[in-house]
Amino acid sequence: MLRAGGVAPRHTGPMQLRDAGPTDLAAIAPVFRAIVSDGETYCYADDLTDEQIAAEWMPPPPFRCIVALDDDGALLGTAKMGPVRAGRGDHIATAAFMVTPAAQGKGTGRALAEAALRWAQQAGYAGMQFNAVVETNMAAVALWQQLGFRILATIPAAFDSKRHGRVGMHVMYRPLP
Amino acid sequence: MLRAGGVAPRHTGPMQLRDAGPTDLAAIAPVFRAIVSDGETYCYADDLTDEQIAAEWMPPPPFRCIVALDDDGALLGTAKMGPVRAGRGDHIATAAFMVTPAAQGKGTGRALAEAALRWAQQAGYAGMQFNAVVETNMAAVALWQQLGFRILATIPAAFDSKRHGRVGMHVMYRPLP
Repeated sequence: MLRAGGVAPRHTGPMQLRDAGPTDLAAIAPVFRAIVSDGETYCYADDLTDEQIAAEWMPPPPFRCIVALDDDGALLGTAKMGPVRAGRGDHIATAAFMVTPAAQGKGTGRALAEAALRWAQQAGYAGMQFNAVVETNMAAVALWQQLGFRILATIPAAFDSKRHGRVGMHVMYRPLP
Repeated sequence: MLRAGGVAPRHTGPMQLRDAGPTDLAAIAPVFRAIVSDGETYCYADDLTDEQIAAEWMPPPPFRCIVALDDDGALLGTAKMGPVRAGRGDHIATAAFMVTPAAQGKGTGRALAEAALRWAQQAGYAGMQFNAVVETNMAAVALWQQLGFRILATIPAAFDSKRHGRVGMHVMYRPLP
């Protein structure tokens, strides 16, 4: 559940959240590549160009991309959100999150996720669905569960983890509001 | 399981299966639009252009699009298939199917599905996943179950059916071979 007085759209203590713009791609792209090539969380090709990263992570409305910045304006993390499907499936939202290695364990993922849930609720979505949560990504799975998501299913051996080999991917869901 | 002596890549009795080419778009696009606007099975926008339909249904390799034709060369149905995800998720296949209203109940969907399973098996995929099978599409659900798929989960109220209102969408999966 969103906490009362949860993440404000603009500022939350030492962390600033705002909508991403085209100039944020320069900071997002290397984080995107580092997290993908780490090989534990995302199903993207390793060799995407900046243009392809922008198309994947910063698509136009109804999608939205936000960034979390520290007091110096350095990128702590980023989230994208939008409808999980088009047409007759566009009342369910989805979202994805990337946190820089240096910012992990400091609440950035939670702040981004709470912002995504707040956005989806305000936009009138009926639920939020994650299609591909790697089961060995324990911190993420625990955080989504704390935020009200349930594991609906696990696709067996669907992710080729660099460290663990083939592991399952969870489909997670929570209704809104 | 694929039956021994199942769908041959080129011909199966009164029905011909072959890879789609650019000239097939003229026959595929109206079928695509009719099935989407029927409002019972697919999460596409209602107003896609021919170019957008080609991008969705006839993407380049590693994806593949096939057509089923009758003896006069008229379109009976079409399937697209490919990896369900990129990168570290690209060892699981997915597929989607459209059968013209006139051809329904005559084995076209089964023939297309068997061809997709054969293709995925030959290409070395470890499984096939359907992400969004509308639960009220009973004929499809039953056919996928006959072909070895299991319902792993149902996303509640995720599809806004024109006739039934919000109904669930199944995530279905079967290992390969």
